[in-house]
Amino acid sequence: MIKNMSENQIVLQLIKYMKDGKKQSFQGILDELHPYDIARIYENMPEKHHTRFLLFSHPEQIADLVQELDKPMQLELLLKLGIEKSGQVLDLMDNDDLAQLLDGLSSERIEELLSGMKQEESEIVQNMMNYPPETAGRLMTNRFVWIPQHYTVRETVDKLKSFAGFSETINYLYVIDHDKKLVGVVSYRDIILADEHEKIQDIMYSRVISVEAHTDQEEVAQLIERYDFLAIPVVTEEQVLVGIVTVDDIIDVVISEATEDIEKLSASGKSIDFDTSAFVAAYRRLPWLILLLFIGLVSGSIISSFEDTLSMVVALTFFMPLIAGMTGNIGTQSLAVVVRGLITREIDRGVIIRLVFRELKVGLMIGITCGILIFLIAYIWRGDPILGIVVGSSLIMTLIIGTLAGTIIPIILYRFNVDPAVASGPLITTLNDILSLLIYFSIATMFLSKLL
Amino acid sequence: MIKNMSENQIVLQLIKYMKDGKKQSFQGILDELHPYDIARIYENMPEKHHTRFLLFSHPEQIADLVQELDKPMQLELLLKLGIEKSGQVLDLMDNDDLAQLLDGLSSERIEELLSGMKQEESEIVQNMMNYPPETAGRLMTNRFVWIPQHYTVRETVDKLKSFAGFSETINYLYVIDHDKKLVGVVSYRDIILADEHEKIQDIMYSRVISVEAHTDQEEVAQLIERYDFLAIPVVTEEQVLVGIVTVDDIIDVVISEATEDIEKLSASGKSIDFDTSAFVAAYRRLPWLILLLFIGLVSGSIISSFEDTLSMVVALTFFMPLIAGMTGNIGTQSLAVVVRGLITREIDRGVIIRLVFRELKVGLMIGITCGILIFLIAYIWRGDPILGIVVGSSLIMTLIIGTLAGTIIPIILYRFNVDPAVASGPLITTLNDILSLLIYFSIATMFLSKLL
Repeated sequence: MIKNMSENQIVLQLIKYMKDGKKQSFQGILDELHPYDIARIYENMPEKHHTRFLLFSHPEQIADLVQELDKPMQLELLLKLGIEKSGQVLDLMDNDDLAQLLDGLSSERIEELLSGMKQEESEIVQNMMNYPPETAGRLMTNRFVWIPQHYTVRETVDKLKSFAGFSETINYLYVIDHDKKLVGVVSYRDIILADEHEKIQDIMYSRVISVEAHTDQEEVAQLIERYDFLAIPVVTEEQVLVGIVTVDDIIDVVISEATEDIEKLSASGKSIDFDTSAFVAAYRRLPWLILLLFIGLVSGSIISSFEDTLSMVVALTFFMPLIAGMTGNIGTQSLAVVVRGLITREIDRGVIIRLVFRELKVGLMIGITCGILIFLIAYIWRGDPILGIVVGSSLIMTLIIGTLAGTIIPIILYRFNVDPAVASGPLITTLNDILSLLIYFSIATMFLSKLL
Repeated sequence: MIKNMSENQIVLQLIKYMKDGKKQSFQGILDELHPYDIARIYENMPEKHHTRFLLFSHPEQIADLVQELDKPMQLELLLKLGIEKSGQVLDLMDNDDLAQLLDGLSSERIEELLSGMKQEESEIVQNMMNYPPETAGRLMTNRFVWIPQHYTVRETVDKLKSFAGFSETINYLYVIDHDKKLVGVVSYRDIILADEHEKIQDIMYSRVISVEAHTDQEEVAQLIERYDFLAIPVVTEEQVLVGIVTVDDIIDVVISEATEDIEKLSASGKSIDFDTSAFVAAYRRLPWLILLLFIGLVSGSIISSFEDTLSMVVALTFFMPLIAGMTGNIGTQSLAVVVRGLITREIDRGVIIRLVFRELKVGLMIGITCGILIFLIAYIWRGDPILGIVVGSSLIMTLIIGTLAGTIIPIILYRFNVDPAVASGPLITTLNDILSLLIYFSIATMFLSKLL
């Protein structure tokens, strides 16, 4: 019925039904919409209609809707519902989404929210919250169907029918033995294609790939990406099946990991987007900049310690930004390769040695090319071959050191599990600034008598 | 049987079966493995066994294997197979993977490869290659099952059984009318739960979300992410169903888009990873660095034009790296926010104006904070309030201009569809270097009489 209606028309129709008290027709429209669209409609509707909107929707519809809102709006909606109805809605929510909602709230607030829920549902969520953040245990859902291995296809279909609407619409059924250990997997398609008297254990696929609940979310994402899975089962150390992680959550993981990498490279601070207010954005970016300002003062004091050299050969100043800038740039390039590489493959000693050696060679090749170039330019521009040699040899050295710094520093931080945000692009750039100035002025001072 | 065997043990076992000529047992093992694992085994096996490996595998197994290899290895494998068997394998490959394989090959090579294929299969691939790169048409597969809307559930199951093994294991069946237009979608689960006499058009979901074949892959990824879809149907302008894009391809899109963003920020050049050779990596990174070297010379000539000011007040040099560096850093921060924002939401005039205005305010707040700080430091360090004022007011101005440059330049490039790699971090940093030096020395020259 609403097939060809625009979003605005749908909103108007829903408001009309609410005014006329037509609950049935209202729910009919919601049933035809995707949760994401319902959430958009709810958000774009004048707030005065919200309470009525919730009154007209049944808990399943609200549970779908609430999962697509952002956190402040979720909390506001639950408040509007009151303890009892919000309990019903929370019971119906996917427990991974619920765990995400609770994450970061005060323990009183969590208790308050969980108090309206069924005992067993709230226990499941509390168990999930016990796993460390960014692990499989935090991402998993318990809305999946498991089948004992001795079931026939017929029995399986019967079980599926009674759990309809409960499980996430994922293609696989997981097969467990009498100890609840994961022993196999079978797809809906296999079920359709099989004869109804066949036993599940005869049609199941038994080399199941699973993850342990403490596995890091990046590793889970790698497995799902690698095998093109739609979901991956989560087990305890004893191989007991406790949940599944679905591919839609993994897309979110991949996006947030990429955003983290970019924050590392730019030190732009956590979660600044187009909607962040100016004050908040400035507040999040400032700490880094102030730190970098103080590191920048180190450059200043290095230069000041070479004040005599400088005042004698002012021309040295002209090449300062070039040398510092180039060193910073080559360091950022190396950093980007390392940061991206660290998430997409496993790192062992061999890989690191090969990489550092490779970057050393890259630094040499680029350094010699640029060094010769700048020697020629400096010589022609200032007519002084010694100045050319000072600038050229400095650039060769600083580029080699710059690329190594951009490679080794993030690896060391990664090895020592330091918050990777520390290995940010600006930090490497600023450190490379300091190194390059030290090298440049040291070489210049060595040649000072010849420069005059 | 191989359930508890390590990868090495499996390799040895396979080699043994090959030596003993036990084709059946060999294939039995392959059948228990995921394509990704078969590919790893093939790669890690000494090359002398490869020909025999392919001889022992049947075309379906090779088709699964080949999709998980990288391009050079794929081409080598097809060469080993010979025209006839490689044609069989190509027929069995998913056409999106095949299109990816052909992408970038010479037209003679493409013709040669396609020559061994069935007419209809090679036509499908050639049609796909006609869509522009990075669109839905290039990503889609035709291995899906469509159902006429007048079918009953029973007829549907029969059709499914006869197409078993052909379709990708995705949860949905797409429903078309007599003009082959997409009219609905139904899941395997719906089929299992429905009565076998029901008509598909009565149980299908008719508000289908689809994409047009020319839709950009980023937009497809956004839709799939937003709606948590496992697949999305692809239609022509006339709504005729031509393929589906599956979530596993979308994960690859999300990863490659993120990598592109990082290349933008670091100008590290396309596709350098841990395995790239030093020479190739240097060759890819050099063009940018040489360009930046010449831009850096502009900084040099700016400084040289202020030679008189500098030689009179050498202390001005001390703050040069700090001012240039801070301006570069704030620009990179803004750039990161913009680059990430441009891919995750639609951009209109209003969004841009709000964003630029926000960044102006951020620049003001950060500029004033850092400016006051550096005024105090310069004053205390050098005991000269005028130097403090010069440095402080310069920093305020350069930080504001730096953040605006980091915001506006990428937006302009994006608007004019310039290759976004141009808006790279180092470029913004280098431009900000030049701007900051101009401002700093202009202000210093204005105050020159008071500084002496």
